[in-house]
Amino acid sequence: MVGSEFDDEDPNFGYVTPENVALFTDLYELTMLQGYYRANHTPRATFSLFFRDLPPNRGYVLTAGLEQAIASVESLSFGELALSYLRDRGFEDEFLDELADFEFTGELRALPEGTPVFPNEPILEVTAPIFEAQLFETILLNQVGYQCLVATKAARMREAVERYGDDQSLVDFGCRRSHGTDAGMKAARAAVVGGFDGTSLVSAGETFDIPVYGTMAHSWVQSFENERDSFSTFIEQYGDDPILLVDTYDSVEGARIAMDVANEHDIEVGVRLDSGDLAVLSNEVEAIVGDAPIFVSSSMDEYKIVEFFENGGVATGFGPGTALTTSEDAPSLDLVYKLTEIERDGEMRPSMKLSSGKVTFPGAKSVYRVRSGEGDETYEKDVLALRNEDVAGVEAADDQLVTVFENGNRVIDLPHLDAIADRAGERRRKLPVRCRALHESEEYSVEISDGLRALTDELQAELAAD
Amino acid sequence: MVGSEFDDEDPNFGYVTPENVALFTDLYELTMLQGYYRANHTPRATFSLFFRDLPPNRGYVLTAGLEQAIASVESLSFGELALSYLRDRGFEDEFLDELADFEFTGELRALPEGTPVFPNEPILEVTAPIFEAQLFETILLNQVGYQCLVATKAARMREAVERYGDDQSLVDFGCRRSHGTDAGMKAARAAVVGGFDGTSLVSAGETFDIPVYGTMAHSWVQSFENERDSFSTFIEQYGDDPILLVDTYDSVEGARIAMDVANEHDIEVGVRLDSGDLAVLSNEVEAIVGDAPIFVSSSMDEYKIVEFFENGGVATGFGPGTALTTSEDAPSLDLVYKLTEIERDGEMRPSMKLSSGKVTFPGAKSVYRVRSGEGDETYEKDVLALRNEDVAGVEAADDQLVTVFENGNRVIDLPHLDAIADRAGERRRKLPVRCRALHESEEYSVEISDGLRALTDELQAELAAD
Repeated sequence: MVGSEFDDEDPNFGYVTPENVALFTDLYELTMLQGYYRANHTPRATFSLFFRDLPPNRGYVLTAGLEQAIASVESLSFGELALSYLRDRGFEDEFLDELADFEFTGELRALPEGTPVFPNEPILEVTAPIFEAQLFETILLNQVGYQCLVATKAARMREAVERYGDDQSLVDFGCRRSHGTDAGMKAARAAVVGGFDGTSLVSAGETFDIPVYGTMAHSWVQSFENERDSFSTFIEQYGDDPILLVDTYDSVEGARIAMDVANEHDIEVGVRLDSGDLAVLSNEVEAIVGDAPIFVSSSMDEYKIVEFFENGGVATGFGPGTALTTSEDAPSLDLVYKLTEIERDGEMRPSMKLSSGKVTFPGAKSVYRVRSGEGDETYEKDVLALRNEDVAGVEAADDQLVTVFENGNRVIDLPHLDAIADRAGERRRKLPVRCRALHESEEYSVEISDGLRALTDELQAELAAD
Repeated sequence: MVGSEFDDEDPNFGYVTPENVALFTDLYELTMLQGYYRANHTPRATFSLFFRDLPPNRGYVLTAGLEQAIASVESLSFGELALSYLRDRGFEDEFLDELADFEFTGELRALPEGTPVFPNEPILEVTAPIFEAQLFETILLNQVGYQCLVATKAARMREAVERYGDDQSLVDFGCRRSHGTDAGMKAARAAVVGGFDGTSLVSAGETFDIPVYGTMAHSWVQSFENERDSFSTFIEQYGDDPILLVDTYDSVEGARIAMDVANEHDIEVGVRLDSGDLAVLSNEVEAIVGDAPIFVSSSMDEYKIVEFFENGGVATGFGPGTALTTSEDAPSLDLVYKLTEIERDGEMRPSMKLSSGKVTFPGAKSVYRVRSGEGDETYEKDVLALRNEDVAGVEAADDQLVTVFENGNRVIDLPHLDAIADRAGERRRKLPVRCRALHESEEYSVEISDGLRALTDELQAELAAD
């Protein structure tokens, strides 16, 4: 019987709450957990979270969402609502008692947020009794994947204004089209990681302490007798420096009226363009408003921004929306969480699967990032190696993976979002220019170390022979 | 200064909570609201929520998310957290007092969930003082748009198994790749609206009372010495009818081992295929497992399902994931919320904007769905008309828009999700077959009534002349 949840007294429009978040998991995780528990099968395991292929047009992915991943590991707990639902579904009391006491006791290593990452490189690795490590599969994939997509999309737009424009301001306008409310929040955060200046989403401003921006909608303009009255009233309420939306009836005429009204009130105004041939209009409008801010919205993304500049457009800022928060040309990342090591007879042994087209590299790993000789300003290549493998030409300190949890305790402090954004910008600019291209980017070189290659071949042969 | 929210004592991985949901809005809504309030500009307004273009490959969109939209209208309220954040941002006390007392007093009409809808038709209309109606723009767009996308995507997969297969079971496996946690929840719900049988997401099962399904992951298999042990242990824990994942090493060999182990334990098992040439493998596996369930996952969507059947594949069910929860080939809907009527001198007057490429039809509307003569089994066309317009050949009762709120009070009960799903299936099957095609669907005819056409032309001429 499929029902309605509407008798809920206090609907949470986001739906995931501290009470039910432990249930934000695929059923099979809990089925397996109960199986592991009942069979007393509790080997330590290492799981690696990575993707196999870059999304279309991307030469790199920018990591984001680690903070939320860490929060999941640190505070996941099964309360009465969760336990009682699972009891009704036939899970057994002894197992549920185990869940009620659930605590993470393992190790977690991760790439810091704002790090460029490439196929097969672990974004994070969890090593813990399989009962613990398995549980986090669904939530970790969910927390990390989407923010990586948005941070990457945002970084591409930042790249576009850096290369083709004048490093204009970028503000996330996309919460209305994000996939639900949580996505709107995470997109605003990840956009900052990727290089955005702020968001229009007030709740994201409140939660993440991000600058919040906004102008006015067409409905403001339409609700008055005429455009002039609508601008006057806005200025009377808000004084200096408002951004007036001028395209409700005719953008150029709107800009003229905006300037008129500004002059009457003896203040400065900016204008927003939201439709039409933006490059052409921006020039016509600039001729009227001079060096006042011209803010451009209307379905902007990295491609439209480049086109805008190539057609001679003038703007002081952009408000990308839908394309950003849905990562429109690449709405998914094939992120997976795969077992790569398992304890047998007291020792960790590498493990892999052979599923057609979905082979995984076995073992816990290190990701070495090798700089080119020229002033260390550019990354030359990565080496994906076994953890603790002795790799010629790299130093252990170049391992990009950082230990976040040891024995269940978090051992690092989390950086502020502005520090993450700075780091992301620096690291992105160290990538070879052609790997940052917006179209047909060149592949960045990720070498597989000798040790990892040999182990993979050996294990593959062994499993195939079985 | 951009900060970290991580000192939050009780992280809510979903981020939107009853405390901050009122702030899930673009800043400009609140800026405009304060402007309306201070200017004492409180005309009644009608806003229409609609899209201009069908997403690619779609001949229709299925409505979903009305229940969540209604919850937003019914229970949006500004608590201390929200008010104090806004106060810090410079909003004024008098205005904040107004927000603290906020209550919806208007009217809301909507298409019931599970209704096919076409460009320019209102999915919902809000009529209220502009102070109220404006506030809901962001949250309504967010609540409705994504569920429409997923319900539509799900309906296309249901269409695929109805037409090309044997109406196989469909289960949502996509929460790990959804855009955040709220999307995972809403996708599970919307998938049921579109014709899915259930979800793997436990929290969605709990919240929406949807059937929850699951099997096992590759890590279960890899965590044991060999595949045989992994299957035996699973069967020993779970007894009859488990679905065993057979592709970790070799799908056909895996199916043989699964049957062996099942025979040893004298029980029935099913198998899950998750990689490789699924049509070919499903036949090879069927030769081994006979009429046992064969469940197919691995990046399924409506196109892959059709291809699978066209290549002679055999399956009892499918577990689409990423493509469903990201609506992968159409991750956004150009849903907008536009002012179409405004009170002037005590009367409601139609309103529209002329923005290039974004012209809106003015006025409150009705959507008439005209059935063909043949037993009323097929929809022939829609007529989009002015509300209360006398349209030849249609009856007022054929208006698809239903009154949900009157004077701020909800006047209808909400149907259960299973009733919505039934209705969606019936209505979808009444659409002309060619408008339901998965590729190059034919456009469904939406006529603009004489009255709406005349008013649009008249108003456009009038505004252009200004």
